[in-house]
Amino acid sequence: MRPSGRTASQIRPVTLTRQYTCHAEGSVLVEFGNTKVLCNATVEEGVPRFMKGQGKGWVTAEYSMLPRATHTRSQREAARGKQGGRTLEIQRLIARSLRAAVDLKLLGENTITIDCDVIQADGGTRTASITGACVALVDALTYMRSKGLIKANPLKHMVAALSVGIVAGEAVADLEYIEDSQAETDMNVVMTEAGSLIEVQGTAEGEPFTFDEMQEMLELAKHGLRELFDIQKTALN
Amino acid sequence: MRPSGRTASQIRPVTLTRQYTCHAEGSVLVEFGNTKVLCNATVEEGVPRFMKGQGKGWVTAEYSMLPRATHTRSQREAARGKQGGRTLEIQRLIARSLRAAVDLKLLGENTITIDCDVIQADGGTRTASITGACVALVDALTYMRSKGLIKANPLKHMVAALSVGIVAGEAVADLEYIEDSQAETDMNVVMTEAGSLIEVQGTAEGEPFTFDEMQEMLELAKHGLRELFDIQKTALN
Amino acid sequence: MRPSGRTASQIRPVTLTRQYTCHAEGSVLVEFGNTKVLCNATVEEGVPRFMKGQGKGWVTAEYSMLPRATHTRSQREAARGKQGGRTLEIQRLIARSLRAAVDLKLLGENTITIDCDVIQADGGTRTASITGACVALVDALTYMRSKGLIKANPLKHMVAALSVGIVAGEAVADLEYIEDSQAETDMNVVMTEAGSLIEVQGTAEGEPFTFDEMQEMLELAKHGLRELFDIQKTALN
Amino acid sequence: MRPSGRTASQIRPVTLTRQYTCHAEGSVLVEFGNTKVLCNATVEEGVPRFMKGQGKGWVTAEYSMLPRATHTRSQREAARGKQGGRTLEIQRLIARSLRAAVDLKLLGENTITIDCDVIQADGGTRTASITGACVALVDALTYMRSKGLIKANPLKHMVAALSVGIVAGEAVADLEYIEDSQAETDMNVVMTEAGSLIEVQGTAEGEPFTFDEMQEMLELAKHGLRELFDIQKTALN
Amino acid sequence: MRPSGRTASQIRPVTLTRQYTCHAEGSVLVEFGNTKVLCNATVEEGVPRFMKGQGKGWVTAEYSMLPRATHTRSQREAARGKQGGRTLEIQRLIARSLRAAVDLKLLGENTITIDCDVIQADGGTRTASITGACVALVDALTYMRSKGLIKANPLKHMVAALSVGIVAGEAVADLEYIEDSQAETDMNVVMTEAGSLIEVQGTAEGEPFTFDEMQEMLELAKHGLRELFDIQKTALN
Amino acid sequence: MRPSGRTASQIRPVTLTRQYTCHAEGSVLVEFGNTKVLCNATVEEGVPRFMKGQGKGWVTAEYSMLPRATHTRSQREAARGKQGGRTLEIQRLIARSLRAAVDLKLLGENTITIDCDVIQADGGTRTASITGACVALVDALTYMRSKGLIKANPLKHMVAALSVGIVAGEAVADLEYIEDSQAETDMNVVMTEAGSLIEVQGTAEGEPFTFDEMQEMLELAKHGLRELFDIQKTALN
Repeated sequence: MRPSGRTASQIRPVTLTRQYTCHAEGSVLVEFGNTKVLCNATVEEGVPRFMKGQGKGWVTAEYSMLPRATHTRSQREAARGKQGGRTLEIQRLIARSLRAAVDLKLLGENTITIDCDVIQADGGTRTASITGACVALVDALTYMRSKGLIKANPLKHMVAALSVGIVAGEAVADLEYIEDSQAETDMNVVMTEAGSLIEVQGTAEGEPFTFDEMQEMLELAKHGLRELFDIQKTALN
Repeated sequence: MRPSGRTASQIRPVTLTRQYTCHAEGSVLVEFGNTKVLCNATVEEGVPRFMKGQGKGWVTAEYSMLPRATHTRSQREAARGKQGGRTLEIQRLIARSLRAAVDLKLLGENTITIDCDVIQADGGTRTASITGACVALVDALTYMRSKGLIKANPLKHMVAALSVGIVAGEAVADLEYIEDSQAETDMNVVMTEAGSLIEVQGTAEGEPFTFDEMQEMLELAKHGLRELFDIQKTALN
Repeated sequence: MRPSGRTASQIRPVTLTRQYTCHAEGSVLVEFGNTKVLCNATVEEGVPRFMKGQGKGWVTAEYSMLPRATHTRSQREAARGKQGGRTLEIQRLIARSLRAAVDLKLLGENTITIDCDVIQADGGTRTASITGACVALVDALTYMRSKGLIKANPLKHMVAALSVGIVAGEAVADLEYIEDSQAETDMNVVMTEAGSLIEVQGTAEGEPFTFDEMQEMLELAKHGLRELFDIQKTALN
Repeated sequence: MRPSGRTASQIRPVTLTRQYTCHAEGSVLVEFGNTKVLCNATVEEGVPRFMKGQGKGWVTAEYSMLPRATHTRSQREAARGKQGGRTLEIQRLIARSLRAAVDLKLLGENTITIDCDVIQADGGTRTASITGACVALVDALTYMRSKGLIKANPLKHMVAALSVGIVAGEAVADLEYIEDSQAETDMNVVMTEAGSLIEVQGTAEGEPFTFDEMQEMLELAKHGLRELFDIQKTALN
Repeated sequence: MRPSGRTASQIRPVTLTRQYTCHAEGSVLVEFGNTKVLCNATVEEGVPRFMKGQGKGWVTAEYSMLPRATHTRSQREAARGKQGGRTLEIQRLIARSLRAAVDLKLLGENTITIDCDVIQADGGTRTASITGACVALVDALTYMRSKGLIKANPLKHMVAALSVGIVAGEAVADLEYIEDSQAETDMNVVMTEAGSLIEVQGTAEGEPFTFDEMQEMLELAKHGLRELFDIQKTALN
Repeated sequence: MRPSGRTASQIRPVTLTRQYTCHAEGSVLVEFGNTKVLCNATVEEGVPRFMKGQGKGWVTAEYSMLPRATHTRSQREAARGKQGGRTLEIQRLIARSLRAAVDLKLLGENTITIDCDVIQADGGTRTASITGACVALVDALTYMRSKGLIKANPLKHMVAALSVGIVAGEAVADLEYIEDSQAETDMNVVMTEAGSLIEVQGTAEGEPFTFDEMQEMLELAKHGLRELFDIQKTALN
């Protein structure tokens, strides 16, 4: 029995609130149960130096937790003077996942930056970020077309992400914090709406996991991600 | 005529939403019109090193703007590797203002940290932060009493803050961004509910201001702050 | 009775020594009693990136205390790897105050940087810095005219600054360190020679202050600043 | 046909040179073809602060590339003033993988740090690092037993790692740089000698990958990792 | 003919002004012609961590140039966020030189820090710093004895330093900036009053120098340093 | 008797292995006994900003010790976030020494960077670095000529470096770590093959040294350096 009473494959209630703030070209508050992340997409002309002159655009991401998004306060990274390894790892994952959704050539020499700021954390903040950020990205692309910044739609396919894991010997989907902290294995799966994989990151936190357990987790992810794509679609209509 | 149609002394609609997030001991979303700041109060045992052994507590604050709280994206301070001068100046102001509300001896050797994170900015973020943070502080103190961490109530008086200024030659209260960016003078006033001053910071952005204009601004501030104290009181009941 | 035997409105002996060092375009040692600050003005062609192409100049300032300017040694900021919040706050104040003295259009695309380095501290270092820096600024402008870098004189009016405060319940002018450390309220006032205000920063260090006390402090400041403008004028002749 | 003439499942010649340097408690030069990483294990008494008082040890890792380990010189991270996201991500992976090999309780309150410095890079530096570091770890544990620092052997099982990927539509094992730079998918697999998984990190660099391709890559990894465990075993005898 | 009209062996007028500032336990303004350095010695109880428990004291130094000590303004190191290589090299030299003057055992577990801040630079700032710092050190030791912090005098011998060099093919002593910038070789010599060497640092800036030229420079240094020891002695009486 | 059984003037076995790694334009592993340093020379078009437009090239160097190059592990500078004073001092010395070997005009607007990474340390790492780096530099120049990047050979003369010192009252050459840690004086000498001096840095670690001892050390250095030039020559043929 899971702490929330959910079945092994059941994901938490997910909501996607668009236009959550008023300045960003795309602004989505994504909620997976008590996990709440604000995903703001910013459109800027030009690309970073290493991309210049290739006629292609760039999509990048930054991730941060508010200091008191968690049970105890964590030190503010701006005050510490650097972003931690976990933060860098997560924002690199978000950025790679979103770039996989976009045809950079159709984007022209423009940059889209997605800021994912965790307002409240209860497990799965990186996968919630990707799921919400993709919707904010779509809104930013719509904005760009309406302003004539791009002609064709650079979106190749929606992407979404889900965490799965092995808790107390059983594969479960969409772990909340209390499960995550006791999980033997934690796996994040990023998928396209067409059912192909963009990222799979499985980590044994306690005992190593078998190839069979890996299969079970992948199945749960595939199933839960279908739901997420429906929720994204509904939010965008 | 002000852009919002307000009179010179009229403040924007102000709301204070308590328990906005679930982990912090005090969590208040404060809104002054389109300016939205999340104020989370954290209670921790112990005090910073320079306060140790004095039998007194400490109240401090940190301030940050989400990168896309504003019209254009500003660089994330954690990524730049340091907090800017404006950020440090504001969080020092917030912290001093809140310490003025508390009897540090009655707090015992405990620390309260108030994180003020600007979700959306439209002028007056530092004064909104102080006004909201004081309510979060009260909730944190209530939490401490309920847990037996303190015996007496360390709150000396509520504090609130308001921005006033000279725009197009006229003194006005609670400037929104478009007014702020054209103001000749900008003044932030922090007051106690008893009507005494904690901080007055007036700055000529364009032309210097006269002693008479200073008086006018102070009067507007006094008047608007009375309203803010009522709104705080209502929120706390 | 004040520790120095001064009356409430009496400021300390103030001296302004021009051409204190030989390389800077303006170099003034300002002394307010035992407080000694070296203000060096540097003229450089060009402006910071955010000012480029506007046909206007820029005036900025940096502030630092020598590690042993004070009773006990404070850590060197260069060794710590960053400037503290107090330093940034002060140098922002100095820079804003000096910019208020200058017509940036008449300055052309040139930058004047004023370095205020505190050789010895005994209270009021920021107001002494502004008072001395304005004289160094005038010398730098004279240098620029003599070199043909500017045609008209960009100086709009002299500026000077004075600290006032409430000590033991009484308003006093030009606090020395021992008074400052016991003051209930500390207020810094920056004024033009025409008697208009550029900055007013009042802070309750202990008890909040009343609107009446604020008036008293402003009166003392106005009075003392007249003396400072005379001393500046004498130094420049 | 692969650039090296290898078959799809064929790994490069792998050598493990123990006692490569004279000071470290374990010192292994690992070579996967032209990829050469020096793995030095250091034993120190005590544990980091967050581990204190739990009676358990700690295993951590640091990773770095010499500036000219690659075709073009990359800036030295010490000169830049911070470790990049890629470096932090890799050293976190190495450390997690090695901790999975060790019973931290049997280690007592001691810390083993494994420094993985890439002397020459030709693809697969992180997986080579893990494979070599595990041998250095074993040597460090042997040292600890010989010195009486631990009684029982904390090693639970050997770990090794291999990169696999999809290049030109085909799954291949142990990619060298030229393959890696053109791979559609890159996957790093960390396994125990018992055949369980510690980490799986698959990333679509170009096209997303299918669940079937994922299976193929995992099979190649399992096969190649068996070889690596034999090579480790031989080196340790 | 030297720019100043000095003979090859002639040093500039040197003055040592003690008690230049009022807070430091030793405070000396040292002037070598136009080079002016303020040397403040601070006495603090305790020693750095790596020295603890050895019953010995520590002497260290920090060096900095005011941004406009030179012909053109150099960036403030505190603003850059780090001390440059030249600064670190010089302050390490000053500290080593001063430690060679002191019996650290007789100092007890106390630390003396000498801050050398260059007010105005005209060549030879590091050697002037050492020469002035040694006098500040003596004053600090006198202070310590008067306060009963130490019983015996830890001073082993005075130290002083002089720059010598090869300019236009000729060996000269005490180079001012204009000579220094054209010197083929620049050599700094730190000596004890007994005539033994503490540091010799010779650097070919242009052409390499011969062993004979090295001898000539050492002779000039020995001769000039005798004068400096007399000047120190006079200042201390 | 020296710990290694060497005579006072005898240097350790020195080897220079060229093409030690495959990517750098010059790559030399230099060994002085147990001291092993990898010197990689990188050729890049263009020069640093301060050299632009002068038609001259630039030669620079970076130095680092692997964390476990020494008996105990030292913290990785990239993780600490800055290079230490010792590192900066050494890499400045290496760079100056190499620039003295090259006619920068003949180099054109190209930059050669020599990375000296200490794989294993046993005293004399900076002098070994210079000796090995000069050979790597020659290989890089040969590469440049073969690619047509330069026409004439910019090499003015080979440079090499040796440490000498006073240990137990006797002058000795090429100190290994155990001698270095007990030396009264440590001196590094950088010479050209023509027998002129580029750098002499003598430091009294314990007792000051006499002018006579200085002579003895210089003689030993001159003698040992002749051997090093022969070894360089042999390696390059």
